[in-house]
Amino acid sequence: MTTKQLVDQIWKKKSFLCVGLDVDLNKVPKHILETEDPIFEFNKKIIDATHHLAVAYKPNIAFYEAYGLKGWKSLEKTIQYLNTNHPEVFTIADAKRGDIGNTSSMYAKAFFEDLEFDSVTVAPYMGKDSIEPFLAFEDKHTIMLALTSNQGAFDFQTKMVDGTELYKQVLDTSKDWKNADNLMYVVGATKAEYLADIRSIIPDSFLLVPGVGAQGGNLQDVCKYGINDQIGLLINSSRGIIYASDGLDFDMVAGEKAKELQLQMAEILDAKK
Amino acid sequence: MTTKQLVDQIWKKKSFLCVGLDVDLNKVPKHILETEDPIFEFNKKIIDATHHLAVAYKPNIAFYEAYGLKGWKSLEKTIQYLNTNHPEVFTIADAKRGDIGNTSSMYAKAFFEDLEFDSVTVAPYMGKDSIEPFLAFEDKHTIMLALTSNQGAFDFQTKMVDGTELYKQVLDTSKDWKNADNLMYVVGATKAEYLADIRSIIPDSFLLVPGVGAQGGNLQDVCKYGINDQIGLLINSSRGIIYASDGLDFDMVAGEKAKELQLQMAEILDAKK
Repeated sequence: MTTKQLVDQIWKKKSFLCVGLDVDLNKVPKHILETEDPIFEFNKKIIDATHHLAVAYKPNIAFYEAYGLKGWKSLEKTIQYLNTNHPEVFTIADAKRGDIGNTSSMYAKAFFEDLEFDSVTVAPYMGKDSIEPFLAFEDKHTIMLALTSNQGAFDFQTKMVDGTELYKQVLDTSKDWKNADNLMYVVGATKAEYLADIRSIIPDSFLLVPGVGAQGGNLQDVCKYGINDQIGLLINSSRGIIYASDGLDFDMVAGEKAKELQLQMAEILDAKK
Repeated sequence: MTTKQLVDQIWKKKSFLCVGLDVDLNKVPKHILETEDPIFEFNKKIIDATHHLAVAYKPNIAFYEAYGLKGWKSLEKTIQYLNTNHPEVFTIADAKRGDIGNTSSMYAKAFFEDLEFDSVTVAPYMGKDSIEPFLAFEDKHTIMLALTSNQGAFDFQTKMVDGTELYKQVLDTSKDWKNADNLMYVVGATKAEYLADIRSIIPDSFLLVPGVGAQGGNLQDVCKYGINDQIGLLINSSRGIIYASDGLDFDMVAGEKAKELQLQMAEILDAKK
């Protein structure tokens, strides 16, 4: 998918919502557990109830790997369901990968070619030659961790490096990498006040913003500092939507929660016009 | 596996060699491709030919994920083969994972419980609460990236943070994390001269050292600066062993290459006594 197609979808759906598909079988409704592939059944119902309200879906790969072969099969079915029925949505493999060059190529192949995701999240610690193999894929997007939403972000990411914070170095350095046009960044909603500085370094890039809702981040603050001319934001919500109810009507309630966020986003988009 | 069991095995086999099982189907001998599960068949033959010479095996997970469901199945069969037939060897899932707390727990469950690896590699960028979930598992080991063997290591890892290099901050900070006894570190053999400094920060920890052989690292230099009282080193070789020949005799040649390294290690161990 091209960035333009993503932006067009945002305006069409009046939404920049990303739904996180982090399926924990200890949290899904009991009746779902009786189906043959509970992870996929859960995802399918969530997607059916929210696809007109969300522009992106983000399965976190850890939740699938934890169930071994069965989990990987559920992941395959989920991405196939999305690509077949809702080809307009932007898909994100939240994998946080990164390795030496030839190995990163294998990860890129796994997520871009084998599973046909539009994008994958990566970690920057190993530097340029660990990320460029991902950037080499045309019309695919690489979403690099910059400033994450957890407490541990303060252990290294905000440390001062040559007079500026590490995460800013990561942003600034990566602008010069080959095919940097395909780069997006993860910035946690719990650190919205940092967004003004971030936008001064990467004014045009898309940001994937987790942490709204369950983790305490605020949508209005994120938009105030983070929005740009082509919107440039994907706001992720996982638990706040998918686990809003554990009853028979969990998908309906998920749809309602997604609608609440979408309506706030529509208002913000209308004000931009 | 406990650290003591690993050290005992090192003295018994007179080896601290780790064989990297990075199976690329474009590089394996042609006749292997005709078997039902070429990745597993290749690994099995390599393990059969080297298990008396190596104390650890390290499949890099990217090479399995790149083949989707089939690759994940080959990975399962490989770890089961190791755990059943060679329970004394130390197994490393080279995954370089790391995510917010509850998600890291899922990765830990995947590699420690579902696949029953003894250890997993992780990336430090997201800080303490992304690593501690791995450390919580008893007699399992977490191997954190410190200074990697690739060129990109100089992008961020060696940058000065509050007067000292980032990778040293990573080493120093992590010593205080809960269950830090279960922490090991990745230090590339291509940067052997850094090992003296590294040992002054973490004198007792085990180091996983990739980059000997194909990437140009030197075994003697690594040992000179990196060895400690309980040896404290696992030297990884992948391509130099597993792809030494692509003929019918590839396993025999792999065994010979492993033997060459093991003999050098035996000499170093004898001199330590």
